[in-house]
Amino acid sequence: MSRHHEQPDRKQRARTAASDADVLARLREIVGAENVLVDGERVEPYAQDAVKEKFPPEAVLLPASAAEVSAILKLANERRFPVTARGGGVGYTGGAVPVEGGVVVGTDRMNRIREINADDLYVVTEPGVTTYALQQAVEPRGLFYPPDPASYKNSFVGGNIAENAGGIRSAKYGVTKHYVLGLEVVLPTGEIVRAGGRTTKNVVGFDLTGLLCGSEGMLGIITEATLKLLPLPEATRTVRATFRTMREACACVPAFNRAKVVPVAVEVLDRNSIEAVETEFAFGFGAEAGALLLVSVDGHAEDVERDSKIVERVVKDGGGFDVVRSRSREEEEKLWDVRRALSPAIKKFGTMKFNEDVVVPRSRVPELVERVVRVGERYDTFVVNFGHAGDGNIHVNFMCDRDDPAAMKRAREAVREVFAVAIDLGGTISGEHGIGYVKAPYLSMALDAPTVEMMKRIKRALDPNGILNPGKMFT
Amino acid sequence: MSRHHEQPDRKQRARTAASDADVLARLREIVGAENVLVDGERVEPYAQDAVKEKFPPEAVLLPASAAEVSAILKLANERRFPVTARGGGVGYTGGAVPVEGGVVVGTDRMNRIREINADDLYVVTEPGVTTYALQQAVEPRGLFYPPDPASYKNSFVGGNIAENAGGIRSAKYGVTKHYVLGLEVVLPTGEIVRAGGRTTKNVVGFDLTGLLCGSEGMLGIITEATLKLLPLPEATRTVRATFRTMREACACVPAFNRAKVVPVAVEVLDRNSIEAVETEFAFGFGAEAGALLLVSVDGHAEDVERDSKIVERVVKDGGGFDVVRSRSREEEEKLWDVRRALSPAIKKFGTMKFNEDVVVPRSRVPELVERVVRVGERYDTFVVNFGHAGDGNIHVNFMCDRDDPAAMKRAREAVREVFAVAIDLGGTISGEHGIGYVKAPYLSMALDAPTVEMMKRIKRALDPNGILNPGKMFT
Repeated sequence: MSRHHEQPDRKQRARTAASDADVLARLREIVGAENVLVDGERVEPYAQDAVKEKFPPEAVLLPASAAEVSAILKLANERRFPVTARGGGVGYTGGAVPVEGGVVVGTDRMNRIREINADDLYVVTEPGVTTYALQQAVEPRGLFYPPDPASYKNSFVGGNIAENAGGIRSAKYGVTKHYVLGLEVVLPTGEIVRAGGRTTKNVVGFDLTGLLCGSEGMLGIITEATLKLLPLPEATRTVRATFRTMREACACVPAFNRAKVVPVAVEVLDRNSIEAVETEFAFGFGAEAGALLLVSVDGHAEDVERDSKIVERVVKDGGGFDVVRSRSREEEEKLWDVRRALSPAIKKFGTMKFNEDVVVPRSRVPELVERVVRVGERYDTFVVNFGHAGDGNIHVNFMCDRDDPAAMKRAREAVREVFAVAIDLGGTISGEHGIGYVKAPYLSMALDAPTVEMMKRIKRALDPNGILNPGKMFT
Repeated sequence: MSRHHEQPDRKQRARTAASDADVLARLREIVGAENVLVDGERVEPYAQDAVKEKFPPEAVLLPASAAEVSAILKLANERRFPVTARGGGVGYTGGAVPVEGGVVVGTDRMNRIREINADDLYVVTEPGVTTYALQQAVEPRGLFYPPDPASYKNSFVGGNIAENAGGIRSAKYGVTKHYVLGLEVVLPTGEIVRAGGRTTKNVVGFDLTGLLCGSEGMLGIITEATLKLLPLPEATRTVRATFRTMREACACVPAFNRAKVVPVAVEVLDRNSIEAVETEFAFGFGAEAGALLLVSVDGHAEDVERDSKIVERVVKDGGGFDVVRSRSREEEEKLWDVRRALSPAIKKFGTMKFNEDVVVPRSRVPELVERVVRVGERYDTFVVNFGHAGDGNIHVNFMCDRDDPAAMKRAREAVREVFAVAIDLGGTISGEHGIGYVKAPYLSMALDAPTVEMMKRIKRALDPNGILNPGKMFT
């Protein structure tokens, strides 16, 4: 049974060797006394992530270098206390939360971009830079860092890599792992390793960047990353359309490709999502709108003009109505307003949102949503579905009252059924959020025993004392 | 010291438990007697790869399923004999060669494409399909599998994944690992694991596909792969130009990006390469041609027209002369003839070709080539440089007489110096070929001790008896 939703707050701090006076004294020597937080109020912000369940650390450490992180981890192995790395702390599965106590290593002070190389298309950065700050730093140089998780204004690049963050642009540009060229990582046992390098092609030894990206802070703490950049596309355009059914809307996705257009993003909203934003913000969608599609293209100015017209034609041919095509950046921003309005709009349906991010082969999205709606009906729980139709990653949001135990129980059961549906449709239980402690009880639904055992063998080989981010992924 | 080039042929077979009568009997039970080859002539084709050094296996096994591969590996652990997986056997570093004897597991019979999904843009294939056959199978459906190692007509998809193969298109499309969605793999200890899935977004547990891709057959044997496809671009165009210097030619590479063009391929040939093809095939290049650039773009028909004109303008502005732009597929093929003529043309410079594939950040290519030329002069060894200017992966070919021990020694020393130069320029010793046994002696030049130790820890955790592909990567 997951702690998630069952034990929502654990106000008392755990007590491990991390709280021993001599350990704290050595930690103060390592990172400087001013960078060791133990006061209740000061550690409070490091106790939770977007899941909003509190697990206060015994101390928060704010190191400034790989050498300091290494010294912390060596001490943690010597004295056996848990260490949990933390970036922006905006994850949805508790990856950065110290569920077994010990120390949190915040990467807040490691926030320098070390090199932007326009000729060789890479950036070298410390982990504590926000995704947004990274994008802002490279774009004036005509460069582009595509991964764009919804939390990009607050998420750190280190966390993006640890969680292999996705986002809206992945239909065309893939996910974080496709941009990781090299990593400096401190292993659980304290050794500093340098995986990968500065080039897309690099086949020297095992691909440790491949293993570390998405390892949820369980195999090492990232202290530097070299990320691949692309030339910044000249322009973007967006087309918005409504459809009678989800099935019609999603049928456009492969049709774009058949028309030789690869959209940057194809976002879909289901009927409940449309009703929610309509009730709250009156965009003017009619009752016949059963699904809404937002489709963006990018490239040369002429290309986006042509490609957005092709998209317009495809959605009209596919039964889309109220079709709007942006002709400027401002018009485009306006079309995306509906997507941005969604999160605030659905809040009124419950104080608790079970925000799951299942993924299926994209042609199965309509069936997924139909079955999710039926699950919601069966468990008498309001559900809103929206997300990335272009890559099959749908955000299923069951809404209920946090203070109604029966409703919470029904919602939890609905979540488990939705995971089963996603797997049945050839997909899996998480496309973007990861496992952490929240989805750990469901891991064995998605992976068979030998596959989980392989992961555990790797974990044990690299973290024999189990000190790095314990209580995650495996139950 | 590498066995490579030192012990060119080892005619006698190793003798391990694999040759025991009872082991062979059990192997015949597992895969069927007709799929166990022990006869000298029949195992001969499985004794070498493109390195052309012979290490005959004690037996060749041709299993038809993951279950059979699993049974072989369990027996190998029980009786402790080496197992080496083999795809097309066209590698350049001996990855598929049984240097310590034992059995070779040939994937020849696992050659079925199981599913081509045009709507969801993936293909499910067995490992024994050639890269070319895979491309041929998907293209009529309007689909595109971009990785294109030079050996694509003979290389197997399984080997491409095991080696994380690159190719000419990687400047735009990346390498094999960017297309691996899911893998079925038999671990060294015989368990069958299923890593990843069918979707680009998948963050359920550690990214085992990331670790396995490029693991050179040392961490598992691939028995099925799910690979991402793209919509097939409508058209391609190529521009060919000569320059006085390598420096001028390579300066065009970032200039294309500044002009918002991302070429599919940017291939460069140095002066010695041009002289070689000119002497042999009389293309008509003048003595002033110090470098040659081949640049391809793809996309919509109109886009490639425009983008190839931009490329033409950039190369002319950058000092290019004798600039030719293809206007049809036939003209394009003709422009690429010079690249295809290269391998046969350089053969006359020696019976032995040390074909190395160093990689540097692409802006450092001119300096790399200048320093390689000086290394060649210092060691009195003819050297030809060509390769992928778009991604910094340059093929350095030292030519000498296989029967001249002094020349061979000089060439080997030159190779080691070139590796040091690549590392000094921020690159590494292999962009495409991998390590195998050939580059194992140089691994520690490119990776520091903790990074190598991390790899070894993973290897030991997954292959405690060291039976899978021993004698590779680590010396």
